[in-house]
Amino acid sequence: MGFSIILPDGAQKNYDQAVTIGEVARSISTSLGKAALAGTVDGKLRPVDFEITHAAQVAIITDRDEAGLAVLRATVAFVLEAVAKQAYPQMRLGEHAADEEGFFVDTDKKNQIKISELPELEKAVQKAIKAGDRIEAVLMPKAELAELFKDDPFKLDLLDQEADEVQAYRLGDFVDFGFKALLPNTGKIKQFKLLSVAGAYWQGQSSNPMLQRITGTAFFKKADLDEDLKRRAEIKERDHRTIGRDLDLFFVDPKVGAGLPYWLPKGATIRRVVERYIIDKEVAAGYQHVNTPVLMNLDAYKTSGHWAHYRDDMFPPMDMGDGEMLELRPMNCPSHIQIYKHHIRSYRELPIRIAELGMMHRYEKSGALSGLQRVREMTLNDGHTFVTLEQVQKEFAKTLKLITDVYEDFDITDYYFRLSYRDPKNTEKYFANDEMWERSQSMLKKAMDDMGLDYVEAEGEAAFYGPKLDIQTKTALGADETMSTIQLDFMLPEQFDLSYVGQDGEDHRPVMIHRGIVGTMERFIAYLMEIYKGAFPTWLAPIQVEVIPVNLDAHSDYAKQVRDELNKQGFRAETDLRNEKLGYKIRETQTQKIPYTLVLGDKEMKTNSVNVRRYGTEEEVAKSLTEFSQEIAQDVQAYSRKH
Amino acid sequence: MGFSIILPDGAQKNYDQAVTIGEVARSISTSLGKAALAGTVDGKLRPVDFEITHAAQVAIITDRDEAGLAVLRATVAFVLEAVAKQAYPQMRLGEHAADEEGFFVDTDKKNQIKISELPELEKAVQKAIKAGDRIEAVLMPKAELAELFKDDPFKLDLLDQEADEVQAYRLGDFVDFGFKALLPNTGKIKQFKLLSVAGAYWQGQSSNPMLQRITGTAFFKKADLDEDLKRRAEIKERDHRTIGRDLDLFFVDPKVGAGLPYWLPKGATIRRVVERYIIDKEVAAGYQHVNTPVLMNLDAYKTSGHWAHYRDDMFPPMDMGDGEMLELRPMNCPSHIQIYKHHIRSYRELPIRIAELGMMHRYEKSGALSGLQRVREMTLNDGHTFVTLEQVQKEFAKTLKLITDVYEDFDITDYYFRLSYRDPKNTEKYFANDEMWERSQSMLKKAMDDMGLDYVEAEGEAAFYGPKLDIQTKTALGADETMSTIQLDFMLPEQFDLSYVGQDGEDHRPVMIHRGIVGTMERFIAYLMEIYKGAFPTWLAPIQVEVIPVNLDAHSDYAKQVRDELNKQGFRAETDLRNEKLGYKIRETQTQKIPYTLVLGDKEMKTNSVNVRRYGTEEEVAKSLTEFSQEIAQDVQAYSRKH
Repeated sequence: MGFSIILPDGAQKNYDQAVTIGEVARSISTSLGKAALAGTVDGKLRPVDFEITHAAQVAIITDRDEAGLAVLRATVAFVLEAVAKQAYPQMRLGEHAADEEGFFVDTDKKNQIKISELPELEKAVQKAIKAGDRIEAVLMPKAELAELFKDDPFKLDLLDQEADEVQAYRLGDFVDFGFKALLPNTGKIKQFKLLSVAGAYWQGQSSNPMLQRITGTAFFKKADLDEDLKRRAEIKERDHRTIGRDLDLFFVDPKVGAGLPYWLPKGATIRRVVERYIIDKEVAAGYQHVNTPVLMNLDAYKTSGHWAHYRDDMFPPMDMGDGEMLELRPMNCPSHIQIYKHHIRSYRELPIRIAELGMMHRYEKSGALSGLQRVREMTLNDGHTFVTLEQVQKEFAKTLKLITDVYEDFDITDYYFRLSYRDPKNTEKYFANDEMWERSQSMLKKAMDDMGLDYVEAEGEAAFYGPKLDIQTKTALGADETMSTIQLDFMLPEQFDLSYVGQDGEDHRPVMIHRGIVGTMERFIAYLMEIYKGAFPTWLAPIQVEVIPVNLDAHSDYAKQVRDELNKQGFRAETDLRNEKLGYKIRETQTQKIPYTLVLGDKEMKTNSVNVRRYGTEEEVAKSLTEFSQEIAQDVQAYSRKH
Repeated sequence: MGFSIILPDGAQKNYDQAVTIGEVARSISTSLGKAALAGTVDGKLRPVDFEITHAAQVAIITDRDEAGLAVLRATVAFVLEAVAKQAYPQMRLGEHAADEEGFFVDTDKKNQIKISELPELEKAVQKAIKAGDRIEAVLMPKAELAELFKDDPFKLDLLDQEADEVQAYRLGDFVDFGFKALLPNTGKIKQFKLLSVAGAYWQGQSSNPMLQRITGTAFFKKADLDEDLKRRAEIKERDHRTIGRDLDLFFVDPKVGAGLPYWLPKGATIRRVVERYIIDKEVAAGYQHVNTPVLMNLDAYKTSGHWAHYRDDMFPPMDMGDGEMLELRPMNCPSHIQIYKHHIRSYRELPIRIAELGMMHRYEKSGALSGLQRVREMTLNDGHTFVTLEQVQKEFAKTLKLITDVYEDFDITDYYFRLSYRDPKNTEKYFANDEMWERSQSMLKKAMDDMGLDYVEAEGEAAFYGPKLDIQTKTALGADETMSTIQLDFMLPEQFDLSYVGQDGEDHRPVMIHRGIVGTMERFIAYLMEIYKGAFPTWLAPIQVEVIPVNLDAHSDYAKQVRDELNKQGFRAETDLRNEKLGYKIRETQTQKIPYTLVLGDKEMKTNSVNVRRYGTEEEVAKSLTEFSQEIAQDVQAYSRKH
C-alpha cells in the first residue's frame, strides 16, 4: 500500500503496512513509547492500539498534554463502570463523559448507590489499578454490540448515534463504547477521586427516568489532585445554591414549579434593597420608571419578530376567547415601545429613557434549570432609550458610565468588555439588513475606541435585532456570564413604526438602545452571593445587627430597647432571646454572617452602650449606642466599597 | 266575571268587567286620573292602558313615586328611538334600559351618531313632546313582532326572551317592546338631557359587534335635573379614568391586552411610593416580605380547592411538556403556604406573618373591564398570618389596628365594617364543614363586639374557605368596594396539611388569617385618584415641585440649581424650561395639580430664595431655600394628614 505520516515537528515517516499509534511512538524513542497514552490522527483522539492505514497527521499524547488528562479521566470512568457492574450485576449504565472538570458515569436506580459507598467503589478501582490489566481497544460491528446490550435500553439509544463500526473497549468481561481513547492498561491510572452522587435525568429531560450520576476527577500528580480538591471546596463554599440554602435565602421546588424560585424573607430583603437602589440610581440618571403587564397580545410578538426568531424560548400562548391570544412576555422591549407610542414625541424630549424591573418568562428545558442562575421566571433590570442617530454615541457613553458606577458600588471588579456581532456565516438567524448591521457594529466599535476601552470581539453573540456590548463576569463555577449589556437596535423602531417630530416638523425614526445594568434580579443576587461568599456587606445584609443579652432575665429588656432604637433609625436589627448559651448564639451570628453582633450585659446597660463584634473578627469594642449608630450608618452609605 | 281589586290603603273596589289602570285612577279622583303615569298590578309595573281582568293588588304611579322616574326615563328612551329612527331610517336598534342612573339606547353603527349631533336629537325629542302624541300600549303576538323586525337581528334576539304575547308600544308608525311601562303620551315628558355617545358591545361581549350607546337622563322638575347634571360633572371630575388620562398616569389598550394596564412614569411613581410605604409599614409590624412566582403547578390549585370553586375566574393553564401544567395564580395563598411549609415550625415562632406585593391574574369578561378598577392582572398587598387557635383574636385586633393606622396616613375616613358570612341557602358553594363555619363566624363577631366596633352583616359574601371582615369604601361612581379584608381560614391548613410543633412536642394545626390592607395597587390607586381628585398630597405627588424661571436666559441656571438641590434632598422636582409664557407655565402646574410651584427671578437669585405658590392658592410666599426644604420635608412626613 505505502503511505506516510507527518509528525507535529514536520518529520515524515513512511510505512507500507498498517501501524499503530503505539508503534509510531516507539519508533521515535523508547521513552516516548512508554510515555504514550494515546494519540491524535488527523486531529481526532485515538487509543494507542489504533491502526493507521492511510496518510495522516499524527501526534503522540503523553501526560504532558491537556488531552492526556481527558484520556486519563475517561479511563477512570470506564474502570469505575467495570467495577460497579461487578459489584451490582443488575445495574444498567447510562451516559459517561470526561472533560476539563472531571468525569461522570450515569447508572440506573435499581442499585441505588449512596455517597457513603463511594470509598468502597474507590477501593475497587484501586484494586483494578494495582492489577494493571490490559484495556483492549477493539473495533466492533454495531450489530454485535446491539446484541450484547439487547436488555439495556439506554445503551441501545446511545448506540443509535454510532457508525456501523464502533470503537469499543474491553476490560476482562466488561465492554463499553463511546470513549474516544482510553489508556492501554489500568496501571497507567495515577491519582483519582470520586466526588459525589446525585440525580440526573436521562438526556437531561425531566420526563425521562432519573438516573444516578457518580462524578469524580483524576490527575497524573498528587499535587494537582490536591489543588483541584481545594478549588472544588472553595467553589462549593461560593456556590449560590449552597449559600442560598445555608442562609435561608431562597428555594426552588420542581413539584410546585421547575425554575420558579421562592425568595424567603432574608433573600427577599436583599432583593428589595437592590431593587430600590437600582431604581433610585436610574431615576437620578434621568430614567422614567414604568410598570407594564407581563402579558401581551401575541400579535405584538409577531410584529417584533420574537415569535419568528425566539419562539422556542417562549411560553405557550393562552387562548382568552374573543379571538385574543395572550403571551407571557419573554422580553420587555415591546412593552416599552407601547409607552413610547402612547404620545406623539418631539425631538426636544429625546433621549427618552424608559426603565422597569420587568418580569419576564422564558422557556428553558427542565434539565438546564439551576438555582437562581437558570430560571423560567425572572425580573430584569431593563431599560430602553430612544434617541436620535446623532445622540447614539453620547448616550452609549453615558449608559456605560452608569454601569461602571453601579459596579463600583457593588465592588464588582472582575469583568471585561465584549462586542457581540452577528455570525457572518449564519446571517439568516438575524434581522436581514446588511447595511444596518455594518453601521451599528462599527458605531459600537468606534464608541469603545473613542473611550479608549479594551474589548474582545465575538461573532455570533449578537441579539437577532442588533449588535451589542456585553460586560462579562464569571460565576463561581468559572462560567462566563453576561451581567450588563448595551444593544443598538435599528430594527424594532422600523417594525413598530416609531417616530418623533424633528426640528424640521417632519417625522423621523428614533434609534432604540436596549440596556441592562445588573441583569435579572435572580442572576445578579446569585452572583452577589458568590462574590461575597454569603457575607453580604452591611447595606445588603438581611440582618445587619444581632443583639444578644448576656443574661436573658437581666438584659433582655435592654436588648429589645437597643434593637427597637436601631430599627427606628432604619437598620435591620434583631434580638436573639432563645434559651441558648451565649457562645452558641455568637457562633450562629458568624455562620449566618451577620455584619454586627452586639453583646449586652450589666456594664453596657448601665452606660447605655454596646459591645460590638464585627463579622469575621474576634475583637470586641465598647461603644456608646450613638457612636455605633454613626458607624453603621457610614457603613451602609459606603455600599460595598469598604467591604 | 266579577272580581275585586285592593288598593294600597286597603280599600277594595269591585268590577264585573275588565278595567284599565287609568280608569281605576279616575274612579278614585279626577286629579289622580290626571296624575296617573302608570301603575303596578300585583307588584308589576304596567302602563295606564293595561287591562285588569282578575282580582289583584293595584297601585297608581305618579310623579311622586320612585317608579314614576323610571317610567319617565323609559319613555324618553322610547321617544328618542322613534325620532332617531325617523332621522336615520337605515339604523337598527339594540338594547335600551332605564334605571336610577338614567337611560340608554343602543343603535348599530350604520349611522354613526356624533356627540355634536346630540343637540339636534334633543330638539327632535322636544318637538315630539310638544306634539303630545299618544303612546299606545298594545299587546301583540310574538309572531307579528317577529315579522315586523325580520331584518333586525338584534331585535329578534331580544324577542326570543319574550312570552307569546308581548307588551309593545306604538308612537305613530314606530313600534318597540321591552319596556315595562311608558307614559301614555309624549306631552307628559318634562325635563330630559342627552349625556353621551360611546361604544358598547352587543350583550357586553367584545367578540360581538360594537354598537353605539346614547345615554341620557330625565326628571319631572328642572331643579332635580340641574342638581343631577352637577353631580355628574363632579363624578366625572373624580373618575379615575378621566384623572388618569389628564394627569398621564396610566392607559389600557385592548389591542395589546384587555384589562392589562400600562403605568406611565407618573402613575408608576405614585405606585412605587405606595408600595414602599406599605412594605416598610408591614415590616415594622412584624411581617416578613417574600417574593414568590406568579406561576404554579396546577396541582396546587387542585389541592387548595381553587380549581374546583374558582376555575371560571382563572386563566387557561399552560402545558409545559414533561407532564407539567402551569397556572397563572389567581391568589397568593398557596404560594405563602409553600413558604410556611419550607421549614418545620415551632409554636415559639407563631404568629408567622408572610406578606408580599403579589401579582395575580384573574379572568374577567372583556365587557366587565374598566380602567384600573376591573383588570385581569393585578398586584395585591397580600398577607397570610399563621397562628395558634388561642392567638386568633389578638392577631385579628392587631391586624385591624394596622389597617386603620394606614387609613389615617392616607386620610381615608369614609368606610364601614362588614362581616361577610356564607350564604346559608347555598352552602354547596363553600367548603363543607358546618362546625368550622359556625365557629369562625362567631369568632369574628365576638372580636368585633369585644372591640366595640359597629358593623353590618352580609350573608353570601364570604370566601369559599371562610368568613371575613370586609372594610367597605365607595368609588366615585358610588359603588361599594371592599378595600381591606381579614379572613379566617380553617380549611387551607387542612388541605395542605400544615402543622407546627407545640409546647407538648406534638404536631398541631395552625389557623390561617388572610388579610389585605390597601387591596390591589390597581384599585387602591384608582381610589386615591378619586378621593384626592387627582391633587395628590405631596408625599404621593409624582412631581412635587415645579421650578419655573421668570426669564429663560437670566434665571434658568438658578432654576436648575434649585431643582438639583431639591432632587439631592430626595424630593421630586422638575424645571420647566420650555419656550412658553410664564403665565402659561404656572397655569399648567395647576391643571397638573403639582403641590409646589417655585417662580424664580432676579430677587430670588440674589438672595438664594424661592417664591412659593402652593397648589390651589393664588398666594405667593418668599422663602429661603432652606426654609422651603424644611416645609416640604414636614409636608412629606405628614403623609396625607395635612391634606
